[in-house]
Amino acid sequence: MNELNIMLQKQLEHRTIREFKEESLPAEKFNDLMEVARRTASSNGMQTCSIIRVTDPAIKKEIAAVCGQEYVAKAPELLIFIVDQYRNYKIAGEKNSFNESAKDLDRFFSAFTDACITAQNVVNAAESMNLGTVYLGSILNDSEKVCEILNLPQLTFPAIGLGIGYPNQNPQLKPRMDMSLRIFENKYSSFNNYLDEIKDYDKEMNAYYDLRDSNRRVDSFSDQVATQFKNVIPKRQKMINVIRKQGFNLNLKDEK
Amino acid sequence: MNELNIMLQKQLEHRTIREFKEESLPAEKFNDLMEVARRTASSNGMQTCSIIRVTDPAIKKEIAAVCGQEYVAKAPELLIFIVDQYRNYKIAGEKNSFNESAKDLDRFFSAFTDACITAQNVVNAAESMNLGTVYLGSILNDSEKVCEILNLPQLTFPAIGLGIGYPNQNPQLKPRMDMSLRIFENKYSSFNNYLDEIKDYDKEMNAYYDLRDSNRRVDSFSDQVATQFKNVIPKRQKMINVIRKQGFNLNLKDEK
Ligand SMILES: Cc1cc2nc3c(=O)[nH]c(=O)nc-3n(C[C@H](O)[C@H](O)[C@H](O)COP(=O)(O)O)c2cc1C
Ligand SMILES: Cc1cc2nc3c(=O)[nH]c(=O)nc-3n(C[C@H](O)[C@H](O)[C@H](O)COP(=O)(O)O)c2cc1C
Repeated sequence: MNELNIMLQKQLEHRTIREFKEESLPAEKFNDLMEVARRTASSNGMQTCSIIRVTDPAIKKEIAAVCGQEYVAKAPELLIFIVDQYRNYKIAGEKNSFNESAKDLDRFFSAFTDACITAQNVVNAAESMNLGTVYLGSILNDSEKVCEILNLPQLTFPAIGLGIGYPNQNPQLKPRMDMSLRIFENKYSSFNNYLDEIKDYDKEMNAYYDLRDSNRRVDSFSDQVATQFKNVIPKRQKMINVIRKQGFNLNLKDEK
Repeated sequence: MNELNIMLQKQLEHRTIREFKEESLPAEKFNDLMEVARRTASSNGMQTCSIIRVTDPAIKKEIAAVCGQEYVAKAPELLIFIVDQYRNYKIAGEKNSFNESAKDLDRFFSAFTDACITAQNVVNAAESMNLGTVYLGSILNDSEKVCEILNLPQLTFPAIGLGIGYPNQNPQLKPRMDMSLRIFENKYSSFNNYLDEIKDYDKEMNAYYDLRDSNRRVDSFSDQVATQFKNVIPKRQKMINVIRKQGFNLNLKDEK
């Protein structure tokens, strides 16, 4: 295996880490992560992702409460990746140039994309340093509250959270469905019977959890999907209203 | 520099590549990229990102026309990363389990996040193999058309495109604004005068383009921002309607 394939190897060993050592990151490692964030591609080079580094334990706890996940407060580093059209809105405004389109939902999506890819770039950098990471989509369980906690101005929105630290656990690789179900050539194509297609994967998933905790009755993938869909979080379901409240226009057909 | 820092080094050297050699990717390299995609973290492990690999030159041209960028058709590999709640909707449906919440916009966002981080993971893997990449947000210039071209079923949506190949150009690193403008501790904080803050960056950006093409009068960052905001693409601005048409519910406050 040549030098560069070490990167690939790391990527193929990815596992989410939810329990960290207390040890904090040396400043130079954190700075390296932020240099990687800075270098990430961005839509039209507009750099519309900002990052809130949460260091205050009280604020960490508030975020953990939104997430409903205690371990969030214990992550040595907690980063929230922010959709940020505010900065460029201000820049164009100070030039007395047209900036109303900063509010269009497609700019929201460009910035959301920037935020997500920046987060993944940081994840890869962190994993290359043998750090562990956990994404926190759960910050969206109450996005309005997160906007409040982080003092987010108009035209910003929290896209995704990320916990980082030295792993204090060594989970198995989590099984994935076959890529034949997920990659298509030229056109999307459906399967006649999905349960049939994922039969082996369903079994494999059972085995995965069994190995981790033999006392726990575990779910096949299809059961997990069913459970997931039943889990509706009302504030999260209606998050578009918070996006609107943060100043973005939906531009629905019936709106001008 | 230790072995693993090679990954970091690659990340810090990132540049978008828009001109590729004609050489196509060996099958095993492409498979490696897809294994990385497969291993990417996903919201609740739901694996809601699918990928369309566009190999048909006619379809490439159709996509390039949507993008308004000729070089899209010339990319040796053209991947479209898809928000995919359709597969799990079917899986739960076949179990006669509740699956209506697959249509909620928050599930759309989870899948959108999955799609973006999968794309970046593939970008990192590709760059580690000395391949070049170009993101294609421009597929959203007409997302309805892209849904049609790729035969996308209900509960799917194209999140981002990616061109991949062996670089046939060697662009400079593109300057970035200082991270002090983009990273905040605990709370977001605004600046009194952004033009002042980015004064040096504005100058640096001028120099960047000057070096690349000395015949072309170039824009500072703040001028680029102003130009960007003036560039409103009507179909793109109203893309929420296409998301709706693909079967997602916005769950606006005034809707039940
Ligand atoms: C979400 C996203 C969408 C993009 N869309 C396009 C595109 O449609 N066409 C293109 O040529 N470049 C596109 N890019 C590349 C950016 O223009 C590029 O990343 C940015 O100018 C910074 O340059 P660099 O990546 O060389 O550092 C996109 C990048 C991102 C992250
Ligand atoms: C967008 C996104 C949101 C996630 N949100 C959470 C979260 O809130 N809490 C958590 O513990 N894990 C979260 N995860 C981690 C996933 O549960 C994990 O990636 C998935 O189960 C696959 O496991 P693996 O990463 O160990 O392979 C999230 C992952 C992604 C990509």
